[in-house]
Amino acid sequence: MKIALTSDNIAGASDSVLEAMMAASKGDAMPYGNDEATAEVTTMLSELFECDLDVFLVSTGTAANVLSVSAMTPPWGSVLCHTESHLMNDESTAPEFYTGGARFVGIEGADAKMDPVLLKKVVSQKVGDVHSCQPSAVSLSQVTEVGSVYSLDEIRALTDVAKSAGLPVHMDGARFANALVALGCSPAEMTWKAGVDIVSFGATKNGTMASEAIVVFNKALSKELGFRRKRGGHLHSKMRLLSSQMIAYLTDDLWRKNATHANAMMALLQEGLKSVPGVVINTPAQANMLFCTLPAGMAEHLQAEGFAFYGGRWEEGVVRLVTSFRTPAEGIDAFVASARRFADSV
Amino acid sequence: MKIALTSDNIAGASDSVLEAMMAASKGDAMPYGNDEATAEVTTMLSELFECDLDVFLVSTGTAANVLSVSAMTPPWGSVLCHTESHLMNDESTAPEFYTGGARFVGIEGADAKMDPVLLKKVVSQKVGDVHSCQPSAVSLSQVTEVGSVYSLDEIRALTDVAKSAGLPVHMDGARFANALVALGCSPAEMTWKAGVDIVSFGATKNGTMASEAIVVFNKALSKELGFRRKRGGHLHSKMRLLSSQMIAYLTDDLWRKNATHANAMMALLQEGLKSVPGVVINTPAQANMLFCTLPAGMAEHLQAEGFAFYGGRWEEGVVRLVTSFRTPAEGIDAFVASARRFADSV
Amino acid sequence: MKIALTSDNIAGASDSVLEAMMAASKGDAMPYGNDEATAEVTTMLSELFECDLDVFLVSTGTAANVLSVSAMTPPWGSVLCHTESHLMNDESTAPEFYTGGARFVGIEGADAKMDPVLLKKVVSQKVGDVHSCQPSAVSLSQVTEVGSVYSLDEIRALTDVAKSAGLPVHMDGARFANALVALGCSPAEMTWKAGVDIVSFGATKNGTMASEAIVVFNKALSKELGFRRKRGGHLHSKMRLLSSQMIAYLTDDLWRKNATHANAMMALLQEGLKSVPGVVINTPAQANMLFCTLPAGMAEHLQAEGFAFYGGRWEEGVVRLVTSFRTPAEGIDAFVASARRFADSV
Amino acid sequence: MKIALTSDNIAGASDSVLEAMMAASKGDAMPYGNDEATAEVTTMLSELFECDLDVFLVSTGTAANVLSVSAMTPPWGSVLCHTESHLMNDESTAPEFYTGGARFVGIEGADAKMDPVLLKKVVSQKVGDVHSCQPSAVSLSQVTEVGSVYSLDEIRALTDVAKSAGLPVHMDGARFANALVALGCSPAEMTWKAGVDIVSFGATKNGTMASEAIVVFNKALSKELGFRRKRGGHLHSKMRLLSSQMIAYLTDDLWRKNATHANAMMALLQEGLKSVPGVVINTPAQANMLFCTLPAGMAEHLQAEGFAFYGGRWEEGVVRLVTSFRTPAEGIDAFVASARRFADSV
Repeated sequence: MKIALTSDNIAGASDSVLEAMMAASKGDAMPYGNDEATAEVTTMLSELFECDLDVFLVSTGTAANVLSVSAMTPPWGSVLCHTESHLMNDESTAPEFYTGGARFVGIEGADAKMDPVLLKKVVSQKVGDVHSCQPSAVSLSQVTEVGSVYSLDEIRALTDVAKSAGLPVHMDGARFANALVALGCSPAEMTWKAGVDIVSFGATKNGTMASEAIVVFNKALSKELGFRRKRGGHLHSKMRLLSSQMIAYLTDDLWRKNATHANAMMALLQEGLKSVPGVVINTPAQANMLFCTLPAGMAEHLQAEGFAFYGGRWEEGVVRLVTSFRTPAEGIDAFVASARRFADSV
Repeated sequence: MKIALTSDNIAGASDSVLEAMMAASKGDAMPYGNDEATAEVTTMLSELFECDLDVFLVSTGTAANVLSVSAMTPPWGSVLCHTESHLMNDESTAPEFYTGGARFVGIEGADAKMDPVLLKKVVSQKVGDVHSCQPSAVSLSQVTEVGSVYSLDEIRALTDVAKSAGLPVHMDGARFANALVALGCSPAEMTWKAGVDIVSFGATKNGTMASEAIVVFNKALSKELGFRRKRGGHLHSKMRLLSSQMIAYLTDDLWRKNATHANAMMALLQEGLKSVPGVVINTPAQANMLFCTLPAGMAEHLQAEGFAFYGGRWEEGVVRLVTSFRTPAEGIDAFVASARRFADSV
Repeated sequence: MKIALTSDNIAGASDSVLEAMMAASKGDAMPYGNDEATAEVTTMLSELFECDLDVFLVSTGTAANVLSVSAMTPPWGSVLCHTESHLMNDESTAPEFYTGGARFVGIEGADAKMDPVLLKKVVSQKVGDVHSCQPSAVSLSQVTEVGSVYSLDEIRALTDVAKSAGLPVHMDGARFANALVALGCSPAEMTWKAGVDIVSFGATKNGTMASEAIVVFNKALSKELGFRRKRGGHLHSKMRLLSSQMIAYLTDDLWRKNATHANAMMALLQEGLKSVPGVVINTPAQANMLFCTLPAGMAEHLQAEGFAFYGGRWEEGVVRLVTSFRTPAEGIDAFVASARRFADSV
Repeated sequence: MKIALTSDNIAGASDSVLEAMMAASKGDAMPYGNDEATAEVTTMLSELFECDLDVFLVSTGTAANVLSVSAMTPPWGSVLCHTESHLMNDESTAPEFYTGGARFVGIEGADAKMDPVLLKKVVSQKVGDVHSCQPSAVSLSQVTEVGSVYSLDEIRALTDVAKSAGLPVHMDGARFANALVALGCSPAEMTWKAGVDIVSFGATKNGTMASEAIVVFNKALSKELGFRRKRGGHLHSKMRLLSSQMIAYLTDDLWRKNATHANAMMALLQEGLKSVPGVVINTPAQANMLFCTLPAGMAEHLQAEGFAFYGGRWEEGVVRLVTSFRTPAEGIDAFVASARRFADSV
């Protein structure tokens, strides 16, 4: 059984999400989010996060991220995030565009997690100096770009630094559910209880077709977002398309079940690869993404056998493997078996 | 039978569109438009428009419009459009945002159609003068904001003025199908053969949930659009959600059937209202939207009886009535009958 | 004696301004406004305006205007100003650029003065509606673009409307001194006492080479301006060049003497032209600028005789005449005499 | 004799520059650069650089830099410059503002000079990938931020890399004259003959009060600059203020004499400090700026004796010393003598 581990965005949507989209099409509904389903999303997220909050649905993760940070920084500010973050590497200049030309400053740290000591140096740098961009917000990715997961203590270490300097904190939660399942904590614990002001609550990679929620805990930041979403062209007229997906995603813990499956498949994969001679785990996968180094020829062998994944973009031999809510265990077994066959043959 | 004539964006999607979305969810697909369905959309639109073209799918009409014009003007340019156009009145400052701060200059003209004589005055105004914004593009809406439709000659009169000044032309086709059905011409005739360089080919108001195509005939303008779409946050990862809707919309002439129905319902409505004492048709509806003036008390009567529509935003007594691909003929009959009852009773 | 009445920006600077620039060059001075001269400017303006205030010096009037309004509106806001204002007609798209893409909405009114009744309609239009730009600031020009001057009551009528809607008010005072002399009131009366929050206090047209002060009465608006000035590239390193000019301009009432002269020359000119057969005064000049209509051939005659002024840009026969602090009375006499000769000869 | 070595922007202007400003104030002159003096500047620069070129005068170095690069990159592009460059560290977010949100990517290299090998890696990175900013321009600083000077071969090594990737090259010449004197070559050799397309030809730090020339060799890049300068608010009405300074600066080799003096003073200073026990030269000064490390207590001693300079911003003990066209040799001697006294006393 040949599987693709290219990304979790190559899978479609869960059945219940599709059914919800079908059902949502019936009858008339007021446009632009003035419908009942959209109100229902806010109620459900409020229950999930155990607090009062504001929600802005959009259809892409980039929109969720850049709208969120745009509400946190003036155009002469800087947003501090990891050097390897999605925001700084994979969203073109959307961050600059939406913030009116703020600067995105990379903070280093092992496993694509910002080092709080380095962050501390930057948050108070040249504050008040008109010649320098002014530290204005912190954005962290949970899961990170290399598949690691911040522990609650690690999140708190960063938000403490941010708060001590008066900066709001954004969490890029494109793989929010995968991180949560990995930590085994509650959504509240991983966000506002840990000092997060806004989270990009991603669903598209974990079971919907296109639905992301900007969830705002610090409601002082909400006021602008309605205007910013509209002028970004991200206010859907038939909002029920987005809200129906999100409702299904939140119903009966679908989000958790999907992430649990994806993470389990990754655990299976990682466990299997560890026992394959020559394979090196670069960053131990805690969620559903793994960077590892394959011995010479193994990547080509696997691809020739029909398995798909990204390689050739990083150091020699490094490949990225991503599982999703739809990855079959048989596929993982087949992948590991193929890798083993190659290792045994050389 | 109580119906809502509030807008054509209150309806859901056609059955075949929903089925296509369901089917599209199966299996893996490469993200960001690198899938077969997205390539298929280009092929189908190329056949529809009888020419080579580039396509950029997005999920909102605002995104389609502002991305299109952003490829046509420098930040110190002006985009000329009707004073009552959607671009100038209903898209927040998205036009300024996406163009990096260009200016949108309103041109007057009866029935929300730009007057070519007035346009001619402006296209050559202060060209080369650094103190003044430089006329850079023309954008016309087909169907217009008041429900009128430009004839082919009227389109050509405007594009001739634009071309003589070297300006590209954008068509806001949020109700493209409704206009085309009204004119009874071919898509090619209403666009590139008439001098249009880019059209926002709208589908959301006429049968899809969220799918709009930026169709570029003048391919010199395409190069930037891929970058602009991404930095606007409008590049969907699971693009097949958008492409599957568009394919269904283009299959078996669904777009034409839906628009034909919507227009027919409007014709029925207009015919009926003409015979109701006291009702004044403001702009004769050629497509699926009508502005008319109701005698005092009639709007309240209709709303009390359960009919929904917009009023109270314009001159005293003026209401806007919009039919869609899903408006039932019985609903139209009921609406007219209710209006007549009121008229007879006063 | 042939004179140019093209504009008041064609004259150089007053002698004391030049001497101050010379003197300011001596010795070392801390850069970027951290010098004593710049502090002195704030003290002097504070005395002139009889209140506490913040000052930001820049070298062009466009910079003063657009920085001022940029501190008053979010990018999704609208700034309301007269349709014929400099801001909307002569500053390219600098207004959009500096505000991050806000919209500039023209308000009509006789003599290039906004009509408060029309303004009142717009300030509360679609407030809170994300689809529409949000009324955010009002900007009025004193002297206006056609040479008229708002009375204190007229200013108050506009600021009352603005304040009732919670909007801050900017005054484009490119010809501030000329207006003040015309009204015979105090600087405080024409600004903060009349409800103005920020004034572009122009000096370049009235005796300096390049020095304009953004004077902020509402200090809540000051915080951003230091950052905005720097990122606009308008923070001079050798700030003393700007501050020395402004100090000289404010010393011994130079600003008032210069404006008094310019206005007197205009009064002389207007009085003279009134008695020339065929000349029509379009807007009675209250300060130093006049729009009038000359009989056929007179403009060409004057230009052939060596007088310079702008014509051919407005209605048939309309010309603009501007006097400055350096316009000689003999030149005015000669201009009127030449006009009279022409009138007598036809 | 106590001197300040804080920066070269603390000095005023050369006498002939001041005299030229005085003289330029006489008579009328057409505004906005349509005067004879401004045309003369272009002629003089054309002769200096031995080629046809376009000139745009502005009054700040930040404006010169950010306008220049804004003509070279689309908003989704990246501009490659040294990590320690002025553009990336001292101009707030003006670079992002003027480019409409492009990204500024730091390239490392010893002595604040970009390493061509590292540059080569970046120029072709992810070209055509819409998710990544597109390498679009290279900007190098001559003199660099640490006082080093690129040799002609070093410039050529960078421009070769840029050209091979099709990227235009900007030179930040805030201290152009100091670099040129250091190299002993011609202006042409250091710019267009070495592959530079636009240079910010700085004069403010070397003898004028406020006058910088954007000099464009690659005239295809000029077309936009007139519009960009105006919308940035940088088009002076009384342009003769800027042009008169530049003419004086270019007359009788004033620029070269001033830079020769500043560099000679630095050579004297460096020679002197080398012989002071405990003083470490960090980067050998080639022009008029020096970074050196003073032994503990020496900086405080010098400052207590009345000498001024920047310290405390970098590594322990590091100070920056800058000489100017007006720095007196006696002051340098006094500075070195004071340092020696301190060294001898400990």
